[in-house]
Order: sequence, then structure tokens, then C-alpha cells
Amino acid sequence: MTTASIFNLQCPIPISEYPTITLAHGGGGRLTQMLIEKMFAPAFRNETLEELHDGAILRVGEGRLAYSTDSFVISPRFFPGGDIGSLAVHGTVNDLAMCGAQPLALSAGFILEEGLPMDELWRIVQSLAEAARVVGAPVATGDTKVVDRGKGDGIYINTSGVGVIPEGIRIAPTRAQPGDKVIVSGRIAEHGMAIMSVREGLAFETELVSDSAPLHTLIAGLLDAAGEHVHVLRDPTRGGVSSALNEIAQAAKVGINLREDAIPLGDAVRGACEILGLDPLYVANEGKALAIVTPDHADAALAAIRRHPLGADAAIIGEVVPDHPRRVVMRSRIGGQRVVDMLSGEQLPRIC
Amino acid sequence: MTTASIFNLQCPIPISEYPTITLAHGGGGRLTQMLIEKMFAPAFRNETLEELHDGAILRVGEGRLAYSTDSFVISPRFFPGGDIGSLAVHGTVNDLAMCGAQPLALSAGFILEEGLPMDELWRIVQSLAEAARVVGAPVATGDTKVVDRGKGDGIYINTSGVGVIPEGIRIAPTRAQPGDKVIVSGRIAEHGMAIMSVREGLAFETELVSDSAPLHTLIAGLLDAAGEHVHVLRDPTRGGVSSALNEIAQAAKVGINLREDAIPLGDAVRGACEILGLDPLYVANEGKALAIVTPDHADAALAAIRRHPLGADAAIIGEVVPDHPRRVVMRSRIGGQRVVDMLSGEQLPRIC
Repeated sequence: MTTASIFNLQCPIPISEYPTITLAHGGGGRLTQMLIEKMFAPAFRNETLEELHDGAILRVGEGRLAYSTDSFVISPRFFPGGDIGSLAVHGTVNDLAMCGAQPLALSAGFILEEGLPMDELWRIVQSLAEAARVVGAPVATGDTKVVDRGKGDGIYINTSGVGVIPEGIRIAPTRAQPGDKVIVSGRIAEHGMAIMSVREGLAFETELVSDSAPLHTLIAGLLDAAGEHVHVLRDPTRGGVSSALNEIAQAAKVGINLREDAIPLGDAVRGACEILGLDPLYVANEGKALAIVTPDHADAALAAIRRHPLGADAAIIGEVVPDHPRRVVMRSRIGGQRVVDMLSGEQLPRIC
Repeated sequence: MTTASIFNLQCPIPISEYPTITLAHGGGGRLTQMLIEKMFAPAFRNETLEELHDGAILRVGEGRLAYSTDSFVISPRFFPGGDIGSLAVHGTVNDLAMCGAQPLALSAGFILEEGLPMDELWRIVQSLAEAARVVGAPVATGDTKVVDRGKGDGIYINTSGVGVIPEGIRIAPTRAQPGDKVIVSGRIAEHGMAIMSVREGLAFETELVSDSAPLHTLIAGLLDAAGEHVHVLRDPTRGGVSSALNEIAQAAKVGINLREDAIPLGDAVRGACEILGLDPLYVANEGKALAIVTPDHADAALAAIRRHPLGADAAIIGEVVPDHPRRVVMRSRIGGQRVVDMLSGEQLPRIC
């Protein structure tokens, strides 16, 4: 395609309906998906991007590398359970882990706003560095830009990561098959509710702590136990469990059934969700994985996850079905069924 | 080191003197260097980062990969000769090229401000995609965040890149040796002056066009011709030729002598610099390389660069010397000598 022909293409998102970017375009729900599917995917069309993974898979010599990027714009930048620095490491390490990869190296790109207190930067840099050390992946390359006052919000951080995918592992959202079990590695909605509690000044905020954590060793244990029988991995960040499972259902053209009473949820999170009128299925996690595993290896997979300190509350929460392809359906505690859609607006802006 | 001990460390930059981040911390000069050397480098201490390269070098199996990241906050986002989308590709491809690498894949992370016109995003995405296609490196993974109005400036883009370093190539700033020749691949200061002319509304702005371009094929030709005899490569972006050569002089503990009359400079750029009182040695380039090459291969290297369409005006502009280690000294047209320091303040904020 020549330059001329590309630049003659009409904007693939109807401008009359969506004249400008809105916060919901960054929320991880329906508008984010529209932006990716209608604008980014056609523009950047290539084989790796088409797998619609949390990261790309690069073939290098005999091996395979996972490659992922994530920008962090969370507000506030310090929160119960972490800060923008540690989150920037965990987010990218987890994206690599969801490709089945162990992290090899990270990059860090800082966009600082003029006026950011020097000691806040120092605290964030230390936190990011410490998180990387705990993970065992060096911050191998970096960049710093400064924007004028009023053109940023203190600090934004982009991290990217490169990881090594072990032989024999093939994780992809398209691999979800009817019969597969859906496992979640622990209690959901903790990150989003921790952020929300700080923003809203909820009285019980001290009980609400982000789950921000690196999942690569948990995933390594899972892959040791269930290997090629692990079909899909996904960390349910923006848009929560519902958006992650909807994306998988759409990619694999399958249905997914969930049981509400099986989904691990802490009391404080449940209470805060009720007060704020939020559905925990749509609230962001930063230290949880969804794993879709063949039925014969689901128990072994669950046991492996539970052996990890971050996976003690793991549970099988549903299964992949041939019915209602591309839809996620939940059976409630009282026996009713409802479709669990993608997030359609912006529930919690700047959650990561 | 434990978490506790790290977090007890005092901020390594004296807060009484530098209480907050200023625009100059992002300018590529002395304050940027202080931030890197005093804060980032000690916090992220690891072998790859210590090479102080434009990118890191990762050993993967038998091979070596270059890995680099760069955030782009340029204002205005459309300028003569490019836009933030194409620049985001060229900047990272060039950082990889300066490690001697050919690009394998890119990532793109967008931070969008609420209210960004959808069609502007579309133009930028197309431009970024087209630049990546021309380079031949897929945008393999991406991310989009949206920040509220007044917390950004339309669009910021981070790109990272992974590239393959051919066998036998060993590029590092520490390799500069007395006797080596300093080559620049063409006319300097074109990017910075193009941006400046738009911002200042200069009458002759139409003549000033950014040199934003990908240098990987130019570098491939150079390495074919001079291989291991190429000791250092650097693209003189923020802070210009002076900052890049000062960094090399410091890393290799050598002196560098320049001849002013050998430095390629276009008439329009020279005129604009004179009007605005800017020294072209400090003005950013986005499509130029500095190469430091052994004396016996300098002519072959220069000829190889000149054969490339982007290198027609390449010239030998100086040499590495054992005298005045860590300093760059220029002999002026009229025969005087002056020390060419690093940029100490912020000359042109948000130039890339």
C-alpha cells in the first residue's frame, strides 16, 4: 500500500458519532475494543498483532520471545498496596506471564510534569527498581521526557518487557475450547476498589488494598503442572474479569458460563462495591490471572496455582461451552442467568 | 539489598537545590545527565544499563538483541517533515541502529488526552503505521490509555523496539579511541530548527524541514563497509551533536576535537540559528548519525554513508584525541578554539 492510498482512507471510526477521544476509550471496555479493532488493528496489520494477545510473540532463532508494552497513568500515584512504579513493573511482567513467558528484561519510559517534587520521583524510581529486582528482570533501557506544567499529571510511566517462552507452551485466546475450565487465581476486584476507596475517601479504605503483584512464578508453577493443557491466560486488568472473558469468548468463538457463587470475593471489596453500586466483575485486578485449561488437567492446574502464595484463593469459576458463542453468561446465586457484557462506558478512569 | 534499606536512602539529587522537576531535566543536557547518573543508574543498576548506550544489548541464545525505548511528547504534533507518529518510529529505529541492530519489532503505547480529535488520532496512527511499514518492522504490541482533559497534551507516544545485532559488531561509547575519526551523516540541526520555526512563526519556516528518518539501512551499509572498525554510533537528538559527543568523551575518557568548517550545515538552518541566537551544535537531529571509526577505515566508512540517500552530505568533522580527556573542543573558522560543553539548560523543550 502506498502512502497516498493510506492517507486517503476515511477515519474508520465514524467521526459524527465519536468526534473526539473520551475517557471511555481508555477504559478497557467496548470503546477501547472499537479503537483497537477499527483503528489500530487495520493500521498496524501484521501477524503477531492479529493474535490479540496481552503481548506479541517474536520468533528469534530457535526460540520464542514474548514482547509487551503498557503505559501507566494511574491516579493517585501512591495507593494502598503499591504505587505507579511497582505497578508499572507488575503490569508488564504479568502481560509477559500471560503469554506463558518468564521476564528477561524491562524498559522504563518516564513522562514527567514540570513541578513534580524530586523526592516523589525518587520514591517512585526506588519502588519500580525494587519491584524489578524482586522479579529478577533488569530495567535494561530507559528514557525520560519532561512536559510543561499543566500538560501532564506528575508522572506517567511506560514499561515494555521481553520474556522467554518455554518450549511446548502455546497460549492464545483462540485456543479456548468447549469443555475447558475457567480458573481465577484469587479474589477479584481488589485493585480497582483500593483506588476507588482512596479517591472517594471511603471510611473502610484501610481494608482495601491493591492486589498489584507479579504473577510470573505463579504462572511458571501452573505451566509446570499443566503445560500444553493450559490454553489461555489473561490478567483481568481494566474492564475486569468480564471484559477479559468476553474478549476470549469473541476470539475463540465460544461461550463461557460462570457461576457467581464460585467467584472469590473479599468481604471489604463486596461491601465497597455495594456502596458504590459497582459490579466486581468489571473492576480491575493487577495481581490475578484467568487460566483456561482442559478439563482433565483443571484440578492439577488449580492445585498448582493454590500452592503459590498469591494463588491460595484460586477457584474454578466456570467453563467454556459450545452454546451462545461470543457471550459470557453467569448463573447467579439465586439461580437466574444473565449475560455478562463487556464494560460499555468508563467505570473507573485511570485505574492503571 | 532489602526494601527497607533502599527506601531509607536519601534522594541522591539535593532537594534543596532541585526541589522539583524542571523542563531542563528533559532537555538532554546537563540536568538530564544528572538525573540519569545520580538517580536512575544507581536505582536500576545492572550490567546492560551500565553500558550507557542508546539501547540495551540482551543476550538470547547464541544471538544478541538490541532493546530500546523512547517516549515522544513533541509539540506541535504535526510539523514540516513529519509528525509525532512517524517520529516515534524513526526515533526508536535509530536507537536500535545506534546499537548496530536491524529492527525486528516495535511496540507502541499511546497516552491520549480526552478531547483529542478522532481524525487527528487517525492521521497519527496512519503515519506511525506507514513509517513502520517503510522500515519493515511490525508494530507487534500496543497499549492505549486516556487521561482527563488538562492532564496531557493531545497525544504522547512511547515506542520501544527490539532489533538483531549482526555477529562481529561491537558498538559502545567506551570504545572511542584516540586517532578514531568522527563522522556525521549529514547536515545538522534540521529537526530542532523546523520545530522552532513553527513555534516562533518564522517567515522562512517553509525552508526548514525536519530530517526525521530511519537510519537502519544507512547503518547497515556502514557496517558492511567498516564492520568492527566502527567503534561508536550515536544519533544526536536532544542536546544535539555537542551533548552526544560529550557523553562519548566522558564514557571513553577521551578528548574529541571538532573542526567547525567541516560540519555540514544548511543555509536556512544557519540563518535561523543566527536569528534566534542558537548554536546548531546544540539543536536536535532526528535523522543523523555520528559514527566514530578507526582512522584506517574512516574513508571507506564515509564513502559507504555517502552512497546512502540520507548520507549524501556526510563528512569527517573531527577526531578522538588523547588530550583534554572528557572534553570536546572545536576549532572555529577563524582559527580559535573553544570548549563545546553539554547543554546546561533547556534550549528547546519538547523537541521529540
